[in-house]
Parts: sequence; structure tokens; C-alpha cells
Amino acid sequence: MTFLPLRTVIYCLFLVGLWYGPVSAGVDREKLLTDSGVYGSFAVFALDDQWGKIDSSIRIARLATLKGVVEQHREHVAIDLYLLRGLSDHADVLFRIHAMELRDIQAFLLDLKSSQFGRHLKTAGIMHGLTKKPTYVPGFSEQTKADLMSPSEPGPKPYVIVIPVKKSAEWWGLDREKQAAMMQEHTVAALPYLKTVKRKLYHSTGLDDIDFITYFETSKLEDFHSLVLSLEKVKEFQYVRRLGHPTLLGVLQSVDEIIESLVQ
Amino acid sequence: MTFLPLRTVIYCLFLVGLWYGPVSAGVDREKLLTDSGVYGSFAVFALDDQWGKIDSSIRIARLATLKGVVEQHREHVAIDLYLLRGLSDHADVLFRIHAMELRDIQAFLLDLKSSQFGRHLKTAGIMHGLTKKPTYVPGFSEQTKADLMSPSEPGPKPYVIVIPVKKSAEWWGLDREKQAAMMQEHTVAALPYLKTVKRKLYHSTGLDDIDFITYFETSKLEDFHSLVLSLEKVKEFQYVRRLGHPTLLGVLQSVDEIIESLVQ
Amino acid sequence: MTFLPLRTVIYCLFLVGLWYGPVSAGVDREKLLTDSGVYGSFAVFALDDQWGKIDSSIRIARLATLKGVVEQHREHVAIDLYLLRGLSDHADVLFRIHAMELRDIQAFLLDLKSSQFGRHLKTAGIMHGLTKKPTYVPGFSEQTKADLMSPSEPGPKPYVIVIPVKKSAEWWGLDREKQAAMMQEHTVAALPYLKTVKRKLYHSTGLDDIDFITYFETSKLEDFHSLVLSLEKVKEFQYVRRLGHPTLLGVLQSVDEIIESLVQ
Amino acid sequence: MTFLPLRTVIYCLFLVGLWYGPVSAGVDREKLLTDSGVYGSFAVFALDDQWGKIDSSIRIARLATLKGVVEQHREHVAIDLYLLRGLSDHADVLFRIHAMELRDIQAFLLDLKSSQFGRHLKTAGIMHGLTKKPTYVPGFSEQTKADLMSPSEPGPKPYVIVIPVKKSAEWWGLDREKQAAMMQEHTVAALPYLKTVKRKLYHSTGLDDIDFITYFETSKLEDFHSLVLSLEKVKEFQYVRRLGHPTLLGVLQSVDEIIESLVQ
Amino acid sequence: MTFLPLRTVIYCLFLVGLWYGPVSAGVDREKLLTDSGVYGSFAVFALDDQWGKIDSSIRIARLATLKGVVEQHREHVAIDLYLLRGLSDHADVLFRIHAMELRDIQAFLLDLKSSQFGRHLKTAGIMHGLTKKPTYVPGFSEQTKADLMSPSEPGPKPYVIVIPVKKSAEWWGLDREKQAAMMQEHTVAALPYLKTVKRKLYHSTGLDDIDFITYFETSKLEDFHSLVLSLEKVKEFQYVRRLGHPTLLGVLQSVDEIIESLVQ
Repeated sequence: MTFLPLRTVIYCLFLVGLWYGPVSAGVDREKLLTDSGVYGSFAVFALDDQWGKIDSSIRIARLATLKGVVEQHREHVAIDLYLLRGLSDHADVLFRIHAMELRDIQAFLLDLKSSQFGRHLKTAGIMHGLTKKPTYVPGFSEQTKADLMSPSEPGPKPYVIVIPVKKSAEWWGLDREKQAAMMQEHTVAALPYLKTVKRKLYHSTGLDDIDFITYFETSKLEDFHSLVLSLEKVKEFQYVRRLGHPTLLGVLQSVDEIIESLVQ
Repeated sequence: MTFLPLRTVIYCLFLVGLWYGPVSAGVDREKLLTDSGVYGSFAVFALDDQWGKIDSSIRIARLATLKGVVEQHREHVAIDLYLLRGLSDHADVLFRIHAMELRDIQAFLLDLKSSQFGRHLKTAGIMHGLTKKPTYVPGFSEQTKADLMSPSEPGPKPYVIVIPVKKSAEWWGLDREKQAAMMQEHTVAALPYLKTVKRKLYHSTGLDDIDFITYFETSKLEDFHSLVLSLEKVKEFQYVRRLGHPTLLGVLQSVDEIIESLVQ
Repeated sequence: MTFLPLRTVIYCLFLVGLWYGPVSAGVDREKLLTDSGVYGSFAVFALDDQWGKIDSSIRIARLATLKGVVEQHREHVAIDLYLLRGLSDHADVLFRIHAMELRDIQAFLLDLKSSQFGRHLKTAGIMHGLTKKPTYVPGFSEQTKADLMSPSEPGPKPYVIVIPVKKSAEWWGLDREKQAAMMQEHTVAALPYLKTVKRKLYHSTGLDDIDFITYFETSKLEDFHSLVLSLEKVKEFQYVRRLGHPTLLGVLQSVDEIIESLVQ
Repeated sequence: MTFLPLRTVIYCLFLVGLWYGPVSAGVDREKLLTDSGVYGSFAVFALDDQWGKIDSSIRIARLATLKGVVEQHREHVAIDLYLLRGLSDHADVLFRIHAMELRDIQAFLLDLKSSQFGRHLKTAGIMHGLTKKPTYVPGFSEQTKADLMSPSEPGPKPYVIVIPVKKSAEWWGLDREKQAAMMQEHTVAALPYLKTVKRKLYHSTGLDDIDFITYFETSKLEDFHSLVLSLEKVKEFQYVRRLGHPTLLGVLQSVDEIIESLVQ
Repeated sequence: MTFLPLRTVIYCLFLVGLWYGPVSAGVDREKLLTDSGVYGSFAVFALDDQWGKIDSSIRIARLATLKGVVEQHREHVAIDLYLLRGLSDHADVLFRIHAMELRDIQAFLLDLKSSQFGRHLKTAGIMHGLTKKPTYVPGFSEQTKADLMSPSEPGPKPYVIVIPVKKSAEWWGLDREKQAAMMQEHTVAALPYLKTVKRKLYHSTGLDDIDFITYFETSKLEDFHSLVLSLEKVKEFQYVRRLGHPTLLGVLQSVDEIIESLVQ
């Protein structure tokens, strides 16, 4: 435990951060996060054994390079950070990166890895997905369509859950009507939780050994638990595979909050 | 083997511990342990290779920081410690932490990890669950209901077993009556062991890659063995999955006992 | 390869061993090894990378602490040692420990781990079982019952094989008569090998992620091979699961022989 | 992050590279890449923890030995390099090596491993395959045959995906007509993507624990995603197994580009 | 890359090797390799990270101890060495050891592990098998029996493949005639490849977690590929399990060749 006045230290760090020069306007983040045809990569890292053993002043200097790399790539990629430490046993940090081209994501991750901070990161996993236009099942009622479009409740949703899923070969072999009927049942089961649990879907087939990356944000984990329970009770779940131990649970944090968390 | 008068050393350690200031009244532990809607996290750690090689006086100093972190978080979380070392091959210590919010548990684990002691801990696993009101199967007789409410025999129950379970997709697809009938059979099979084996159930679906965390306390491991054997003979067991090598076996210890065990 | 006169060194080591004081009468080993209601734990260890690199005189000193710990716990637990090195790829040494209470086994393993020698041991696995009265299948003939009671051929049986097994959920769901009929067929298939292959069964359900630990001693590995082949041909084998890569193969050695083997 | 003028450094490196003497004419690369009866090996490596910690001037010197080994073996093997770092969590670099004899590939990999650079490489996987004459399914129309022969669109195809697959025992047991009919359906499903996704097939049965190595090059990852999605919808996919987490995603780079990427 | 005149160095090494004294006549190698009732163990090792970093003169000195240990045990065991490095991702070297008793094999491996060279070996796997008289299926024609007895083509067969296999519980439960009919079909499928692919079978049931170790030598890997493909098309293959990633591919080398390969 550090009894140093941490806020002061962090404040200095931000000054150092400014040294990287004026932050560019950056990529159109809103567009990347809502458009289809966008690549979304999830890079999961664990800090190496050395991290906890180096001097905290060195840790501060190295974390400054994290801020530097993030700033440097803001023109091409939209970056979100999540603290997994203390909630997931997989790793310590998750980066979600959106870009129009996977090479831009690779360029960011290469620079991250070769930064002073990145040299302490051990890759626990990288998954890639693609956003696609939602295909509303034809049989949906107007009400359901409207419900699906209504935004979730405003306010912070700190908890983030990422569940990669694979669908069984049997699923892909089903005829389209059966699939559509099951997806309708699935969607209806999820409706009651749309207000408190925000969802985003990425298509991964071929880009990785999974078919989808499902991403959730919520402030009410109990609602999220109920949502998943509901989804497991519909027929479509018989075709869902989660391989290994894939669920990631963390909290959304700004770069500065992540730095404050990891500096200790 | 240390031939130092260990109790004396531990005594000094407690004085050091007092330095952390008067212990606050803390969270309502009883309420957290009995209420529904409470989060329970199980964090499993192994000591790193270095631990056994550092000087025992340094080990004592580092263990003092464990006591410090536990005291510091007593206001928001209820913490139980278990020694797995010598009984489980997974890890050395288990923390069971109850709180109203998962972020409070994360805050504790972050501080634990960044403490002088925590830097020697390698995370072997973290699982989260939620306590929910018991749903007595409608068909239960008044006698069964009464039996389920009767407390287990008083006296220490040092042995603790944690078995995370997943239920098959097939189970979740069954209609509710079939599930209820099977859960009734399951409950009846467990009744004879309620007196010597204390049970607690956590719901995990979505929060982790499992559906339930089942927690047991007993002083009679043979009874626990017979209980599990009985539960494996009822129909519901056909739908139970234990993934990998998940069973944890340990003994409940106070912070001071854990310190005494690990200082050697 | 050491060209030192090893026997001389070992001899010195025994003198050092004597420093631990007169060996106590110890636990009733025979009773522990034959009674039911006894816990048997199998602790499997690999030597760490450092072991081979330290000076042989230091290795000798550290191995003396192994002898010390074993002597110290002889009052409560019965300890058998096996050299796996060169025969199993899992690990180097196996401890089989019998006691009336699992806590006594834990106490031994804690002291072992914190001894100078134990700090070089990496836990490869710990399994626990319980001995129970043999339940002779009702349909057994008097001859079969007599055959089962007849002791195996005298003489050393240096090879030891430990195979942990799990039975499928389907097995536990079978009605008792079907199980009994299959166990009878299984037992009859094993009869021809009783003379040269000694067997001992431990019940593990709940104490570990397996249902049984089967332990074999023989001087004729070819007979053991034929025994297992016979057991795989009976119906009961369809319900047997061996998870992962569990078979352990080693040779029984006294503490002094283990020390001689590991000192090199 | 290095703020050194990297191109200058690399330039020097190439001069050093020239020291290895005039580059030999080398193996008939085109022939190796198009003929049948050629062995193709995929060697996947991760850089060790030390790599990021050594001085960048030393990294440059060591990378020069990579260039040296590649030049030295150009007479017998055709070598392609891919940067996986930042896209795959498996590893950092992939070598695809073609040769008439597997021993020539082994000779290259032995020299690579024993080079100053290679000592930092940890083998993440090696797979071998054999190119064979395409067996056009008899029922193919002339149009389909022509389509299959038409080259893919010109221009760089930087993204590379390698998916090793195993076919189930059930597949191998099917009669030949059923297999042929399914392979025809499979081929037709892939046709629309032949222009933007280049494919190459290696037969691995017996040489490795897989049956095929499928290799893809594309500049349009979205098309590749659609291709795999199409292939998962045909009947043949029910017999396809991808074991573990096998997909590799990277970008094709020249030796010099790889050096520039890894020098940082 | 070493530019030292390696042959000269190796020559010196052999002189050092001679210091171990005149080589004893040794065990009857031919008999061990052809008789039934002989134990065959396959010990697979990877060199540790340190190996590549020590001085080449030290590597030479340590490799001399490998030669020493092999010579020393020639009286009781027949030892074959294979270089896996560059062909298998499992490990670097494979030892195949034949002996009348498994303890003699253990004695060799213990001495190997404690030698200066052996301290750099990390055990990647050990498998044991037993040779048994071939049980010709009764229905075999005289021609088939003769074909099976005819030796393979003379000349070196440098490539070696080891595939451990397990047969499913279902196979062991089949009646003997069905098994025999399937084994006949299996044998006939293999006949065309007997000339270029030499086979040897070890029975492992009980000695390891597999049922058979299948060992192949060939100079024509393409024939071996075709052989395995043929064997996967017969009914018996539906009962074959290869667990994990077990195939080993390497080249047969003399002790001196292995030393030359590993010294670099």
C-alpha cells in the first residue's frame, strides 16, 4: 500500500502527458462506435511479475508512455480501456479498439507492446470482430422493433462484460426460417433488460476461433445476470458454445483512471 | 522448518497490526452472510516461488500488510479466509468476500494485490456469485420445509469445500415442472446431511463461466462425501457439469491463523 | 554424474538425521493401511529447476530436512514414498499419506512444503480418498469371496501405479442391481491377477474431482497390463472416465532410498 | 517508443546484411509455390520476455542474423514471413517454408533456432503439409472448373489467415460419392470469393495431428469473413473440427519489414 | 550461427568420449528390438532456455556427458535417439529405450537427468509400451501372412513418426469377431505401404494413459501420409482416439549426430 499523495503524483503525470503535444481532433469516435463495417478488437493483457516489483516512480514514468501511445493513435482508432484486475482472473486490462482497418489496430498494438509500459504486458488474448447491420427478424412486431431502437437508460454503466461465443456446426446447418424463429424468441427474451443493460454485437467468424463477441455495459449486474439466465432458457441456447473460460468482467475507466489504478 | 518461538513473533506482529489504528465497527457481516441480493466472490491465490525464499522476518512484515488491507476494507466487505495449502493443488489461500456491490470487492482485491504481501500472490481464479431468495419447490411437504430451515449442529466446521457447477444447456431448456420435480428429489437426497454439512448457494450465470458456486462447511468430511454421493444418484445430476478440475478443499482460518500458517 | 562415494555421504546424512532425536513409536501404520474410514492422500511433486543446479552438499543438507519432517509426523500419519522420476512425466516424487483426519495430512504437507527440501517441490497434484468397507456383491459365490480374501504372493512389489477414475453421470443414475451385476463381472475379470497385483481402493467423490483412486503394486508389470486390459473389456468400463493424463507410474522406495535417488 | 530515426538504423542493418555475401540465385520459388508434391511447413514463434528488455542496438545486430539465415537457405527452401504480433495472441512471427524435402526445412529451422536472433524465439507451433494435385470433383460443370482456374484479382493481399482443420472420423468413413457431393457444394459456396480471397491447401494427415492446413491471403477481411460464413453453412462443415484455438491472423511482410517491426 | 570448424570440435569431443573407457559389448540389441515381452519407453525432452545461452565450449563438455551416460547403460538397455527439433513443436530430442525390465529404463533416465547435459532437459513426455507376439487374424490368407512377414525395402529410413493412440471404451466392448474383422480390414489397407514404411507396435494399456504406441520409420513421408490416410478410411478408425496433440515427427540420428546438432 502506498501512502503517498497519489493525486499529486498523477497530476504531475498529466503534465508529462501534455508533453506529447496538443491532442489531435482524432478519429470520428461516435461514427466508429455506431457504424456497421467497423472492426472491433479486444486485446486482453496481464501485467508481468516484474511490474509490482519496480519502483513506483518508474511505474509512473512507464504509465506515461501508455497515455502517449493512446494519444498518438487517436487519429485512426477509437480506444476504450477497462480494468479487469480484481474482477477477472484472466488478466488486468482490456483494450477495446475500433477502426476501419485491422492494420490500424495492429499498428496501435505494436506501438503499445513496444512502449516502456507495454513491455510489462503479457498478451492474454486478442479477439477481432466486425460490426454488421442488425438484421431484424421479418416477423418482429412494430412494437418490438421500436423497443429495440429505444436507447438504454442514461447514466454511467461502469460494469462491462465480454462473452465470446461460438455457434455449433448444427446451428449453421439449420434452415434460415428455423434460425429466424429462434433468434426472434432470443430477442424477445432480452427485451425487458434493454433499459439497464446496453449490448453490442461483433461478428467474428473466420477472424478468430469464435463466431461472435457479445459486449455488455450495465450498472446493475443483477439485471445482467437475469438477462443471461433468460437467454439460456430459449431454444437458441442449445446451439451456443462458450469455449474454455472466456467471460471477461471489468469496469470501464478513462486512461487516467487506469493509470491511477495501475500505478499502485 | 523454523525453530523460532513462532507465537512470540506473531504476537509482535499483532502489535504492528494495531498500528493500523482502532478497528472500525465494520460492515454488518451477519446481514451480508444471510441476505439475498448480496455478491459473493471467491478469489483463489497461490504464493509465488519467491515467497519461500525470502527471509522469515520479511515474510512477517509482508503478512502484516495482509492484516492491514483486511482491516481497512472491513467497512464495506465481509472477508473470510481459508487455507488451501496442503489440501488443494490449485492454490494456497482462498478469500471469500461478500458485499452489496462488486466494485467494493474489486477495491479490496486491488489493494490486496498491490500490498507488500499481495505482490507474492498469483491469481489462480476468481469467481463471482449472487445470493438469491431460496425458491422452495411448491410440492415440498411442511416437514421438508421445516427440516430445510433447521440450523446445522453447532460447533466448529473447519473443512470447507467449494464446487463451482455449470448446468447443461439441456437443463435450461427443460420445462419448469420437470426442473422443479428434479430439484425436489435433489433436496430430499440432501436432507439427511443438513445437520453436519452447512451449505450456501451462489448464482453465477453471466458473472462467470459457471452457473452456481456451491459452498460447504463441515467437521465430518465423510458425511460430506456421502452427501455428494447421494446427490450424484438423483436425476438432476445428469445435467450437472463440473468443468476442469474445480473442487477446492481447505480449512477456515482467522487472519491471524492464516498469517501463522504462511509465515513459516 | 557424481563420482563421489555416495554411500558414504548418505551415511553422514543418517547421522544428521539422528539429530532429530529418537524416533517415536509412531501411528499404528498397519491399522491405518487396513482399516476402513481412513483418509488416504496422494501428493505428487516435481522438483524445481533450481534443484539440479545447487551444490550436491546443499542437496544433501536439504534432503535431511525431508527425513526430519517425515519422522516428526510419524505419530499421526503413515507415509509412503515413491520415485516417479524416470517413469512418469508428471513429477518426481509421490507421497501417499494415511491418517484418521485430513487435517493431520495437511499439517504434514504444510511442514513438508516449508522445509528446506520442500521449498524445491512444485505441487503437481493432490488427491484425497477414503477407505470404505468392501461391499461384496451379494451374488458372489463362496469361492469368489475366498479368492478375494486370499493374500497376494509374498515378496517385493516395487512397481506402483495410481489411476484416478471418475464414473460417468450415467453410471450413478443406473439402478443398483445393474451396477451390482456389472461390478461382479468386473471383479471376476480381475481375479486371475490377484496373486501378482495387489490393489487398494479409495473413495474420492466430493473430496476431489474424481470418484475413486485405484492403487496397484506389482513386480510383474506385464500382469498389470493384462489386468487393465481385462477390466477394459467388461461392461462397467463403458462408464469409466480417466480425465486428462492421470496415470502415475513409479517405484516404492524408503525415505533413505528416495534421498539417495534425489541427491544426485 | 523509440524516437531514433529508425530508417537510418535499418539502412545500416542492410549494409551489415550484405556482408553475408552475394545472394545466390536460390531455389525455384515459383515452382515450389505452385507444384504438387511439395512440403509446406508453418512455424510459429513468440519472442521471449528478454527480447523487449535488451538494448535496441543489440536487437538490430541479432535481427541481422535472421536475414543471414534466410539468405543462407534460399537455395533449398522458399521462405515467407508474416507478422502476427498485434493480431494473433498466439505468437509474434510465422514462417511458411516450402521445400521438396522436409529435412531441408528442418535444416533451416535448426539454423534459425541456433542463430543469435533465434535464441529469443519460443516455438508456439510447427505444422507440416503436402501439396497435392487438386482433385476436381467429377460432377463439376465446365464453368465451375474455369472459375476455379481463374486467378484472383491482382494487387497486394496483406492479410493472411491460417486455419488448420481436422476432419472427423465419421467423414473419413463416408463413401466417396457422398464426400464428393459435399465437396462440390463446399466449392460452389466458395466461388464468389475467389477473386478477393486467395486460397492454398496443404494435406497434413499423419504429418501432424490435423488433416489440412488452409491458407488464405486477402486485402478484404470482410470478404474472408463472408467466405468462412458461407463454408460453415454447407453440409461438409458438420465434419470439420478445429481443435483448440488454432486460427492465425497476420500480415505478409518482407524480411526487411519484419526486421523493422521487431527492432522496436 | 557458429563459423567455427565444427567437425574439428566434434572430433575432440569424441576423444573426450573415449575417456569413458572401452565400450562394453552391451545388451543384445537385435534381440531387444525384435523379441516380444520387451519394454519400450519413449522419453521426450525439450532443452531449457539456458541451453542456447551458455558458451559453446560448455555445451560441448555437457554433451560429452550424454555420450557417457548412453555408453554406461548399453549393457542393459538399447537406446535410439531422434532429433525432433525443427520438426516437432513438442520438444527437441526423443529417446527410445528398450529393456527387459522397466527399472533398467528408469535407471538410465535417472542418470541422464542428473548428468551435466540432462540438467538442461525438460521432460515433455514419457510413454511406456510392451512388445507382444503379433496376433494374426485367423481369416488372413497365406498371401497376406507372407506379405506381412516380408521385410521393408533396405536403405536408410531417416524420418520417424510416433503416434500414441487410445481406443474408445466402445472398441474394448465389441465382441472379438467384430474386432478381428476390422483389424483384418485395417491390415489389408496398410499392406501397400509395408515396403517403404516400417512399423512397430507397443501395447501400453495400464502403463500409460494410452493403449498403443505406433512407431514408423520411412524415407518417403508422402507414402507415410498415404498410409495414414488409408488407415483412417477403414471402419476400425471410428474407435481410435488420439488425445491432445500427440504426433511426434523427427529424424533418427546417432549419438554423435545428435551431439553435432545440439552443440550449435
